[in-house]
Amino acid sequence: MNENTLRVQVLETGQNAKKAARELACLSGEQRQKAIAAMPEKLQQVKDRLFQINREEVIEARGNGLPEFLVKRLEITDNVFTYMINRLEKVASLRDPLNRILQGHEEPGGLMVQKISVPIGVIAIIYESRPSVTTDAASVCIKSGNAVILRGGSESLRTNEVLTDAMVEALKENDVPEYAIQIIRIPGHEAVSEMLKMDECIDVLIPRGGKPLIQRIARGTRIPVIKHYEGICHLYLAEDAPPDMAVQIAVNSKCQRVEVCNALETLLIDERSAGYLLPDLVRAFGERQVHLRGCEKTRAIIRDIAEATEEDWVSEYLAPILSIRIVNGLEQAIDHINKYGSAHTDGIVTQNMSLARQFVQAVDSASVLVNASTRLSGGGDYGMGAVVGISTDKIHARGPVGPEELTSYKWVAYGEGHIR
Amino acid sequence: MNENTLRVQVLETGQNAKKAARELACLSGEQRQKAIAAMPEKLQQVKDRLFQINREEVIEARGNGLPEFLVKRLEITDNVFTYMINRLEKVASLRDPLNRILQGHEEPGGLMVQKISVPIGVIAIIYESRPSVTTDAASVCIKSGNAVILRGGSESLRTNEVLTDAMVEALKENDVPEYAIQIIRIPGHEAVSEMLKMDECIDVLIPRGGKPLIQRIARGTRIPVIKHYEGICHLYLAEDAPPDMAVQIAVNSKCQRVEVCNALETLLIDERSAGYLLPDLVRAFGERQVHLRGCEKTRAIIRDIAEATEEDWVSEYLAPILSIRIVNGLEQAIDHINKYGSAHTDGIVTQNMSLARQFVQAVDSASVLVNASTRLSGGGDYGMGAVVGISTDKIHARGPVGPEELTSYKWVAYGEGHIR
Repeated sequence: MNENTLRVQVLETGQNAKKAARELACLSGEQRQKAIAAMPEKLQQVKDRLFQINREEVIEARGNGLPEFLVKRLEITDNVFTYMINRLEKVASLRDPLNRILQGHEEPGGLMVQKISVPIGVIAIIYESRPSVTTDAASVCIKSGNAVILRGGSESLRTNEVLTDAMVEALKENDVPEYAIQIIRIPGHEAVSEMLKMDECIDVLIPRGGKPLIQRIARGTRIPVIKHYEGICHLYLAEDAPPDMAVQIAVNSKCQRVEVCNALETLLIDERSAGYLLPDLVRAFGERQVHLRGCEKTRAIIRDIAEATEEDWVSEYLAPILSIRIVNGLEQAIDHINKYGSAHTDGIVTQNMSLARQFVQAVDSASVLVNASTRLSGGGDYGMGAVVGISTDKIHARGPVGPEELTSYKWVAYGEGHIR
Repeated sequence: MNENTLRVQVLETGQNAKKAARELACLSGEQRQKAIAAMPEKLQQVKDRLFQINREEVIEARGNGLPEFLVKRLEITDNVFTYMINRLEKVASLRDPLNRILQGHEEPGGLMVQKISVPIGVIAIIYESRPSVTTDAASVCIKSGNAVILRGGSESLRTNEVLTDAMVEALKENDVPEYAIQIIRIPGHEAVSEMLKMDECIDVLIPRGGKPLIQRIARGTRIPVIKHYEGICHLYLAEDAPPDMAVQIAVNSKCQRVEVCNALETLLIDERSAGYLLPDLVRAFGERQVHLRGCEKTRAIIRDIAEATEEDWVSEYLAPILSIRIVNGLEQAIDHINKYGSAHTDGIVTQNMSLARQFVQAVDSASVLVNASTRLSGGGDYGMGAVVGISTDKIHARGPVGPEELTSYKWVAYGEGHIR
């Protein structure tokens, strides 16, 4: 495609999205809800074609030498399909995130002031191969009254087209502007480069993928970016941590799924409990083929494990590897987390309310868990239904990003001739 | 100063701020409140020296040919001093914006989930000559538990140093880390350029000044910027607008202070009320020496006013000039505002609830006022005490930015061995 045609097409997508966003902002919550609720049926209707095209793309990707774990992400199995349908139903059923009165009061002079949630406008989501992001992200955006521009991986373009077309059918049948969900149908990096320039049309960019992708996007645009960086997650077992709970939470945090951002990467153990906790932990992780790397003090107790270096404390393994450090009390645990962590998800196991409160206040992370697995920070266990990702930013959205996090607000003041 | 020394000094400021921010996050609201409450006395103690140094800088600025309206901004009069003191007292008395439970519920499985307001971290404020920004911004940041790096105009550097030193005294006496308020003491653009690179230390940048300054900063940094662009503010007088209220609100919106961002720039009048509203409006604005520019329809009714062009609809006059357009109903008013406006502050005068609701929903602006002057959108009339500015962004903070807008949040989940 010639460069000029490409630019015109991408720009047109942006302008259509902007127009759709204005209309979306004036629809009722019921209308948006109905459109999302109609999506599962539309997906069922194209299921055969979806599976057929997806199979073709899987074969093509494998033929092109895409690593097998990425091919797996691209594949729509029956389980994945059911998951997509369930999420759409769940998102439809959530309460309307718009027109919430976030604050409201009457000023002494009688001016009635309200802070009301409104859509952000146009959200662009740039992601890799997983097609479930297509339905998750689109439904979360429509739920929150935002127009969305989707840009998935080129290897799943046709799969995503089928999904998008089906969702757009549901919009049209429910009088929601069809350009509220659009997909960039041009493969290659040039289309993304064009998107990054469209600060007139796009209000927020949400890149989902590896750190290099996110950094490249954040550095190449003036559009605000909600970033989803890595999770170097910690669990601190305090001196009074109940042994059974400590082992169970540590194992679940690390092993329930090793390749995700809120999986445990470094276990911090108080030196006063390390002596009796470590043998149980080593046994439990051994059974699950997790490779342990320990600090000097850890290796004084458990001699046959590898040494953890400075490099380990800043590593997001996403693999069955766990680094362990013995710390001298709460403060050292907090210092380690705030120094080496990525402010994503960190937890403590303790029965001491005062320790828990200090930990919660001092650990500067998006999610802080007390006596619970780090794996619970994905949003679902916070009641969110579906998310577009987990933000590591402190500006705007932090932690799981669901429909409410994709809203802005406006101030509305009602007077009766009030002047200054 | 050599470039390397400069870099080291600015970087050191950033690192000190980051350290102070960690400590601030763990202080109680009472401690922060006490420190701010102690500031007025500290300012009183240095008042003579402050006025002396400020006078010197005013003379110097005038000698350097700084335009007189900027010299006026730089000057600390008795009124300005009283204003600064009052604001500090007001900010101290506001409720603590931290540790608010923004959301909270228990999940069906018993996990207790809370979304809690926390400080953002380190905030850098880059502004021009007005010394009252120094005390306003510093106190709002401390109130919200953020460390602040101030960078005022070079022509008021010594004035701002005196103010900052006095506030830091109040911090020290109340065991709040002294580096929580710092000022960049190096004049010239190079220091600002260094600040823009410090994404490791600075969490948000808030530039206050003209559009070129803000754009230069937003384009030159990877740090999130809360932008304060211009206000092209509108007032729509609906067909049923009560004439007295309409004139009073229009006049106050335009004339109460013409040089500020929420002053009225374009008046939209419904064609069904223009015939009887316009003569009164022309008289009222005439008495106040406001120059009117009208659309064709306006000039058909009031013949002796200048013509308003496309250029006028996108102008922030900040001067006694007002453009007037006659529109055919609510929808045209909304379209005009969303097309030409700057999404800052817009208002409607109507007694019709349905019109008001449609206007509030469809106008995509930070502040929407019903039967009230646009001048009320500064934050004070929303109950804010003091603000660091009025954001035109939709991400994070929108409209007036007070202590609550300078917070982020964290998710905290309390379990009893909850796993996934």
